[in-house]
Amino acid sequence: MNYLNLSKNELLSEKESLQKKYEDYKNMGLSLNMARGKPSSEQLDLSQPLLDSLKSTDSYLSDDGTDCRNYGGFDGIVECKHLFADILETEPDNVFVGGNSSLNMMFDTISCFMTASIYDDTLPWHDVKDRKFLCPVPGYDRHFGVTGYFGFEMIPVPMNDDGPDMDVVEKLVSEDESIKGIWCVPKYSNPTGITYSDEVVKRFAALKPAAKDFRIMWDNAYAIHDVNDTPDTLLSIIDECKKTGNVDLPILFCSTSKITFSGAGVAALAASPLNMKVLKKRLTYATIGYDKLNMLRHSRFFKNFDGLKNHMEKHKKLLAPKFKTVIDSLDNELKDAGIASWTNPNGGYFVSVDVYNGTADRVVELCKNAGVVLTGAGATFPYGNDPQNKNIRIAPSFPTVEELQSAMDIFCVCAKLAALEVLA
Amino acid sequence: MNYLNLSKNELLSEKESLQKKYEDYKNMGLSLNMARGKPSSEQLDLSQPLLDSLKSTDSYLSDDGTDCRNYGGFDGIVECKHLFADILETEPDNVFVGGNSSLNMMFDTISCFMTASIYDDTLPWHDVKDRKFLCPVPGYDRHFGVTGYFGFEMIPVPMNDDGPDMDVVEKLVSEDESIKGIWCVPKYSNPTGITYSDEVVKRFAALKPAAKDFRIMWDNAYAIHDVNDTPDTLLSIIDECKKTGNVDLPILFCSTSKITFSGAGVAALAASPLNMKVLKKRLTYATIGYDKLNMLRHSRFFKNFDGLKNHMEKHKKLLAPKFKTVIDSLDNELKDAGIASWTNPNGGYFVSVDVYNGTADRVVELCKNAGVVLTGAGATFPYGNDPQNKNIRIAPSFPTVEELQSAMDIFCVCAKLAALEVLA
Repeated sequence: MNYLNLSKNELLSEKESLQKKYEDYKNMGLSLNMARGKPSSEQLDLSQPLLDSLKSTDSYLSDDGTDCRNYGGFDGIVECKHLFADILETEPDNVFVGGNSSLNMMFDTISCFMTASIYDDTLPWHDVKDRKFLCPVPGYDRHFGVTGYFGFEMIPVPMNDDGPDMDVVEKLVSEDESIKGIWCVPKYSNPTGITYSDEVVKRFAALKPAAKDFRIMWDNAYAIHDVNDTPDTLLSIIDECKKTGNVDLPILFCSTSKITFSGAGVAALAASPLNMKVLKKRLTYATIGYDKLNMLRHSRFFKNFDGLKNHMEKHKKLLAPKFKTVIDSLDNELKDAGIASWTNPNGGYFVSVDVYNGTADRVVELCKNAGVVLTGAGATFPYGNDPQNKNIRIAPSFPTVEELQSAMDIFCVCAKLAALEVLA
Repeated sequence: MNYLNLSKNELLSEKESLQKKYEDYKNMGLSLNMARGKPSSEQLDLSQPLLDSLKSTDSYLSDDGTDCRNYGGFDGIVECKHLFADILETEPDNVFVGGNSSLNMMFDTISCFMTASIYDDTLPWHDVKDRKFLCPVPGYDRHFGVTGYFGFEMIPVPMNDDGPDMDVVEKLVSEDESIKGIWCVPKYSNPTGITYSDEVVKRFAALKPAAKDFRIMWDNAYAIHDVNDTPDTLLSIIDECKKTGNVDLPILFCSTSKITFSGAGVAALAASPLNMKVLKKRLTYATIGYDKLNMLRHSRFFKNFDGLKNHMEKHKKLLAPKFKTVIDSLDNELKDAGIASWTNPNGGYFVSVDVYNGTADRVVELCKNAGVVLTGAGATFPYGNDPQNKNIRIAPSFPTVEELQSAMDIFCVCAKLAALEVLA
């Protein structure tokens, strides 16, 4: 029954019936969480052998003979650079291996450009008083947090099914020198789960920004994170930028946070020689080098890129039924009502739901009161401001399938109830 | 024979004899390194069982039940906060546990204050165009590197046997609002190995800086790093600052880099609630949390502070003969000549030698040509500028005692030779 075609009385009756269901759920005293893209305990268990991949009796030497226990090895051990080069589709020489967090490397990259100029004739961004950053929406709240912290005015750019609206991006960056960058999750985007089309990647590589020091923060967090057997493919931004000559535009990031241990993985970035020079100048003073023993653990555990991909198959097996549960619930419970739309991604960690206009915060509130925690409404927009108050990010990875089913039952009731509060 | 009392002919004859010795050493084709404070392989071996302290079959839960494999635990696991609180003599609530490098945490702290103001009515330091930092000399080159990178004018402050010359420090900070901080290695100072006296610590705690946002970077890198059985003691700067009401003055740092693995240890900082608020505001955006599995490994390996101190006894046993070798060589080979002076520290990682005025760079060059690498002359001064060109930092930890003996034999010949080149 499509709510938009119902009479006032029919709406009221439907609302009453849902209100009852909702009260029943509330009385169950559930405590469920679909807020963050946290791997489940079962997913973490997959990497348990990693803890044994470097025992006291094993060699602590990297492939080039570095004692991974001691100082040195500034930009990462050679075998780990190879592994990340494979993930990011570039050469090991372009890779810097960091600590346990790619978010941290992104933060440090922006932090670097805040006080260091990229070119002799550009300013540190701290000195660009009206500095701005493009934020495809809905997007990743922690990205927006970084540029928000550093005082950028954040300009939302609409996301389409094939990536950010490139007409908007091209127009904005060509006109405004104070726009210094854009956040991108190009594959299995957070939260919509879409992958940038070849055309979008090519248009990114062909950008002609007014700001010489404009940079694309290319967060390839889900490069190999499929959740079904029809995976997306992403064109290499590095290759495309080589063709256009814009090699300095993108800086790429990834990590093993959603491959091995979210709290104890290894992160890396890839950048052109010019960008790397600016970043390494900072890093030379910021550290003697990141944790090489953890790099060694990871390299030994995976052995090579094939080992890494095989490992991801195991994640897929655990995640597939969870994504199916979410999508099936939405299909079964919300499709007919005609008050919501959602994405059905082939990978990543999220399903993005647009509930009835103006009701996202109410849906989150209703869910919370029934024991289901969701990412805050608006979190996927800069400043937490979703102008249509409709986008909600669902993170299916952490709960069990059973918990997820309950949480989705409640979510769908809440989504309908919130819509009926407006419609009826 | 005191060179300063020799006749021209005696000097020339001594020089000739040393020149011969030097050529003999050169012909040996040695390759020895006393440049950096790197633990030896034997020292790293002491922590080898740490690699087995968290196996796949062990619990991955911290004392408060946190799954250390997953996201979360922003400021460190509870048992690790306790351990660092013991080292830094403060409460766990004042501690933030970071990644593998305290240098990195110091860099991030300065980086934080570059773009974020500490008080509502103070400026981010990037906006203080004539910003300055006090640098006790001789000091730690990597400290100076950080403030040099961020464009501070670095003002050298003389080091005495009991710490920085506090008359100079007090005068400078009380007069100049653009002086934003001072670097301190208060115990077993890098490189002189002295420990700040009670009076110096009290005077630090009683400072009345013109700059409200002046901060003491208290790098307690060698808090428990004795090399003999007559250890120094250091007054708690936190306790002293409580007495004076200056609780926001110091920020403390330490790490296990010279306790477990230099490249894969755990670092921490301690700060007052106000400082912590400013730092955590940044860290909230910079990371979801540092590597908790490595924190867990360390906590399990040491069990408690007593375990940590017992472990340091083993380091002492390995380091003591090395420091003795250095001091004995200096005593035997250089004392009579009257052209050099040095420190004889009870802990830390360095012996600081003042060779004959104006010859440090020549001594380093002579050593290098005979296969002995030293820290570059001037490295212990901001901008690498030792105005008297006399200070050389000797790092005895990495070579074996035998290698060290050879290196010191050569060093002493070179120190004498360089002096004679001037005197003769």
